[in-house]
Amino acid sequence: MKQKCCRKTVVKTPMSEEGPGTPARARRRGSTRPSVRSTPVKYRFRKGTFEFWFEWLVGAQTHGGSEASECFYAASRIKDGDPRSWVREWLALGERIEARANEALFRRHSVSARECFLRASLYYRAARLYLSVHDPRYQELWQKSVACFRGGARLLAPPLEPVEIPFEKKALPGYFLKVDTGQEPRKTLVMIGGGDTFVEDLYFYIGPAAVKRGYHVLMVDLPGQGGLPFEGMTMRPDAEAPMGAVLDHASRRLEIDTERLAVYGISGGGYLVPRAASFDKRIKACIACSAIPNFYEYMTQGRRPNPIIRLEGTWLFHVLVELAKRRSPASQILIETYLWRWGARRLAEWMEMLKTFNFDRARFHARPSF
Amino acid sequence: MKQKCCRKTVVKTPMSEEGPGTPARARRRGSTRPSVRSTPVKYRFRKGTFEFWFEWLVGAQTHGGSEASECFYAASRIKDGDPRSWVREWLALGERIEARANEALFRRHSVSARECFLRASLYYRAARLYLSVHDPRYQELWQKSVACFRGGARLLAPPLEPVEIPFEKKALPGYFLKVDTGQEPRKTLVMIGGGDTFVEDLYFYIGPAAVKRGYHVLMVDLPGQGGLPFEGMTMRPDAEAPMGAVLDHASRRLEIDTERLAVYGISGGGYLVPRAASFDKRIKACIACSAIPNFYEYMTQGRRPNPIIRLEGTWLFHVLVELAKRRSPASQILIETYLWRWGARRLAEWMEMLKTFNFDRARFHARPSF
Repeated sequence: MKQKCCRKTVVKTPMSEEGPGTPARARRRGSTRPSVRSTPVKYRFRKGTFEFWFEWLVGAQTHGGSEASECFYAASRIKDGDPRSWVREWLALGERIEARANEALFRRHSVSARECFLRASLYYRAARLYLSVHDPRYQELWQKSVACFRGGARLLAPPLEPVEIPFEKKALPGYFLKVDTGQEPRKTLVMIGGGDTFVEDLYFYIGPAAVKRGYHVLMVDLPGQGGLPFEGMTMRPDAEAPMGAVLDHASRRLEIDTERLAVYGISGGGYLVPRAASFDKRIKACIACSAIPNFYEYMTQGRRPNPIIRLEGTWLFHVLVELAKRRSPASQILIETYLWRWGARRLAEWMEMLKTFNFDRARFHARPSF
Repeated sequence: MKQKCCRKTVVKTPMSEEGPGTPARARRRGSTRPSVRSTPVKYRFRKGTFEFWFEWLVGAQTHGGSEASECFYAASRIKDGDPRSWVREWLALGERIEARANEALFRRHSVSARECFLRASLYYRAARLYLSVHDPRYQELWQKSVACFRGGARLLAPPLEPVEIPFEKKALPGYFLKVDTGQEPRKTLVMIGGGDTFVEDLYFYIGPAAVKRGYHVLMVDLPGQGGLPFEGMTMRPDAEAPMGAVLDHASRRLEIDTERLAVYGISGGGYLVPRAASFDKRIKACIACSAIPNFYEYMTQGRRPNPIIRLEGTWLFHVLVELAKRRSPASQILIETYLWRWGARRLAEWMEMLKTFNFDRARFHARPSF
């Protein structure tokens, strides 16, 4: 077992993400600034982050989170950049597919029921993307989405097991996905999301792919993720603390070979996971997609923050925010969600917080990268 | 076992296909004419049949035939309506993914190898859509696509078994996909494609979905389909003859419960399958998506064929064809392919042939439909 003795680390920074879609101009001038929009290929939308989330949804088809035809149908009824139509259409699709799941269950077509529950779950999830966290429908749709996810997860073979990991007198919610019902220890992947994810989302990124390759998967929401900010658990720089609790849980499970424990962080997880790995030796392999050694630097991309932030709290700032909301109501909801996840009241406060989110790249440079 | 005693038939005619996308105008005027374009939702293309095939490709993601991101990347480099760029881009994608499959195989990552081989296979298949059957690259790409498909199919568990079904001193190529390696007889679905399909395509429509639901699947090319026209086996109205050979093969296999034998025909298979079922009592259930009781009527949609066809063979007709080629080179290739599949030299001859492709709807109307 090669994995037993060496600690493998992949630290992929956003700067190394130059795909075929990177604008030629940026490549020619040898820019070291990360290219945030790495691809010019659009599926459907032009405005705001609609396109980003839509691509995410269509891609989820691979692991049963969506059907492209359903996504394009919903999209055809959404007004580009208008969050209200976004919420309405994904909600309607979620309801339609959930009804189909229930009918399939009633007819004892368990495969179809499972597939529809999982898709309905992600469609309810999609609807929440442009709902304010302060909107009463947010929690209602979150519960619906979790119920559908669990309805589908129960019908997996073996079923996905919900777990609650004790942490600082509260609990981190998660799921344990097993290759089979055997008890012998197996290689295991711990998956962590980012600043926008719910633990249920993680299944659609990697769940079936990992299981097919013989990995158990432990998926967990860390503070700031999923619904944890509702319980006062917001983002914190010391990812090694909650990850420690996750690794304690993993160490106690007989099915997990702790000598072959890999951790995979996506998006903001590209900060959380290498940060934890640089403290905790129980992590034997670390995949960050993409690594974010310094969150503040990543968000500001080496530029000074917009000087308007200094006006925060003044009447002028409020006027500017109101104008921005009218111009881009969708972005406003996303910013509000970020502040909520970080437990920040203001943008300037959030920016200050981000400065503490960093890890030492040198700890990884010395290790083999592949 | 409810299926044991009754013969189930679903005959869905194109006329009953009014989805949410059917133009409201057509619905209001109570048109009985089938709506050929049943949906106004476009993924990417506007011209010709590019959009039709592109949607087919993106949809294949569900069963591992494609990745939406790869499809949209290829599409972004294709000039709408230009068959040359279509062929070039799908071929390039096929080569890229095949190389990745070979690398994965070399590294003994058999799941990734399997997934890449299957996708490469469908991308080579896509490239062939707008290649003339008389182009030497056509057969070359066909062989590449079959080789990739078989490379992936070998890595399935249990592996997909290629079969050759004897028919009139020649052979119909097919695959047998099993739920498991057991020998006890199981319910089985025989899948038949249409006027555009290769037997390998059929896997991506239904293969994994059927197996998950406990069905073995037997997929076969009938005369006129796949590469059979290269061997002089062109489309024939008496689908019950080749289907008889397929059912003989099925009856001899121990793994198949011949009392629970369903037949599913897609596209032109919506003619072949009910036609065979109206003669052969071994078919216990029949799904036609959609049923085509009369091919001539379907193609002409109740209208008289274009009077230009009467000019066929004259110099004027040749001029008109040349002009049409310039305007729509892609459609020209498709028409040429259809004539080749039917073994017709001329459009008028093809039209006459189509008149013999029909079955008696009354044989099905008396049966329960669900």
